[in-house]
Amino acid sequence: MITVLSGGVGAARLLRALSGVMDPSELCAVVNVGDDLVLHGLTICPDLDTINYTLAGLNNDELGWGLRGETWRVNEELAALGGESWFRLGDRDLATHLYRTQRLAEGATKSQVTAELSRRWGVAVRLLPVTNDPIATEFDTEIGRLSFQEYFVRHQHDVRVHSVRVRDVEAARPTDEVLEALRGAERIVIAPSNPIISIDPILQVPGVREIVRRRSDDVVAVSPIINGVALKGPADRLLFELGHEVSCVGVADVYSGLVGRWIIDEADRDQTSALEERGLDVRVTTTVMARSDDARRLAEAVLA
Amino acid sequence: MITVLSGGVGAARLLRALSGVMDPSELCAVVNVGDDLVLHGLTICPDLDTINYTLAGLNNDELGWGLRGETWRVNEELAALGGESWFRLGDRDLATHLYRTQRLAEGATKSQVTAELSRRWGVAVRLLPVTNDPIATEFDTEIGRLSFQEYFVRHQHDVRVHSVRVRDVEAARPTDEVLEALRGAERIVIAPSNPIISIDPILQVPGVREIVRRRSDDVVAVSPIINGVALKGPADRLLFELGHEVSCVGVADVYSGLVGRWIIDEADRDQTSALEERGLDVRVTTTVMARSDDARRLAEAVLA
Repeated sequence: MITVLSGGVGAARLLRALSGVMDPSELCAVVNVGDDLVLHGLTICPDLDTINYTLAGLNNDELGWGLRGETWRVNEELAALGGESWFRLGDRDLATHLYRTQRLAEGATKSQVTAELSRRWGVAVRLLPVTNDPIATEFDTEIGRLSFQEYFVRHQHDVRVHSVRVRDVEAARPTDEVLEALRGAERIVIAPSNPIISIDPILQVPGVREIVRRRSDDVVAVSPIINGVALKGPADRLLFELGHEVSCVGVADVYSGLVGRWIIDEADRDQTSALEERGLDVRVTTTVMARSDDARRLAEAVLA
Repeated sequence: MITVLSGGVGAARLLRALSGVMDPSELCAVVNVGDDLVLHGLTICPDLDTINYTLAGLNNDELGWGLRGETWRVNEELAALGGESWFRLGDRDLATHLYRTQRLAEGATKSQVTAELSRRWGVAVRLLPVTNDPIATEFDTEIGRLSFQEYFVRHQHDVRVHSVRVRDVEAARPTDEVLEALRGAERIVIAPSNPIISIDPILQVPGVREIVRRRSDDVVAVSPIINGVALKGPADRLLFELGHEVSCVGVADVYSGLVGRWIIDEADRDQTSALEERGLDVRVTTTVMARSDDARRLAEAVLA
């Protein structure tokens, strides 16, 4: 079993690539839920949905998020009513949220609902929300306290962040499946997701960081920073604003003590020695997964 | 001011007709909320929405409920996911429910949200939910306890009912606007809505029945039963199953002591003396509002 600590898009692509070179039912994703939200009464789990949609082949490549063949009737009407329409909810996507919210109201856990959706879409990879307890990543910014999606979507992460915290994480418990997936995995992979707002909320759930640390020799991380920039999202800017070096070495320092092997991009080959000085085993390959053969090569490097 | 105790479709049509013969801003609807529900996390108010949609000219005449130009993308996707899709939620309609649910979560009352929606749609009639407290009409039936929409939509009111109750109504309070609308109205009208499941839940809210009884000389009711049948919905069947006579006289007995004047259909002219024996002032006209001139005549009879 291979267990992947996962955010959204970057993790989804790595999981898809890994599914191509191994039995996907042996693949487990421990997924961030810090950016889950309740909006219009609906429970929305962006990272879980992004991964499920991508592995089901239902992802919208044009948008880079959401479902393919999406329509926007409800959101257009909502905007016409003067409702909050900045978090663009597609009609197909809404069905997922309606389904999840109803099942949660009936007493199902987030884990169960996720498994139901995966089964419905024929996704063999096991998607595990890191916890079924409510946690919420929040930002102290130059314009005040923002929830995750206010920061990420409403303000397009275009505000200066002073600090990030995960509300209620101290009281959260990882699920039993998550603990098993972390303890029993042959290898733990840290996906090239945002280290501050995708991976750290997973590590903050009590018990998770300790297991990863104990198993650091079996932990492989793929750098989300290539040549000083993030392929997608605000990882580079956040690293800078929170005082970290904006490089694969900077990310390695954020994950200090947790990772045995680092996979970095060809563009960062010159960082190899700085990483090796930190006692890390370094592999260099193309980490951009835009082309399927590159994605395959990265997946093979992760499993090597 | 004219105040109309209102269920859904029948009340919406009468209110529309009344709006045509008087200043609609002098018209007030006290609306049943006993069939409101939370589904998929969304707060849905069928009677309030039916009236707002109808008065805004947005009602779907083909279906007889919901919004015109409706599409069903979300509900189709929800069905494909194996979700509960028996309560058919249209895409446009969903926007209303998302808006309402979000505003309620922000602390607005159901009254406030209703007024916001009316304003948005240019509806001048004042729509007042009878209470902002949660009440829920329930049915004891041959197949067990059912919620309102399980009975009405899921089972298409095709099950035998033993009894009806309005959960939590004892603790509900009518809003101040409702009390004013009932006390200050020149005339109180009981719309041709279902007496058992649309009007009675309004009357059961503590204080409402007492005011109506005290003002019975100013109360005009339009019979929802014509020639022994209900134009729409299960009013006839419910009257029968609960031991009432299925006629305008049977309904008059249900409203005993509350009504001064009855408006019945031409088809029931022979019931006039039975009603007059009960001390009621009876007017006979066409009560079917299928044609606009008939609707107008009924409205004039109500105001006469």
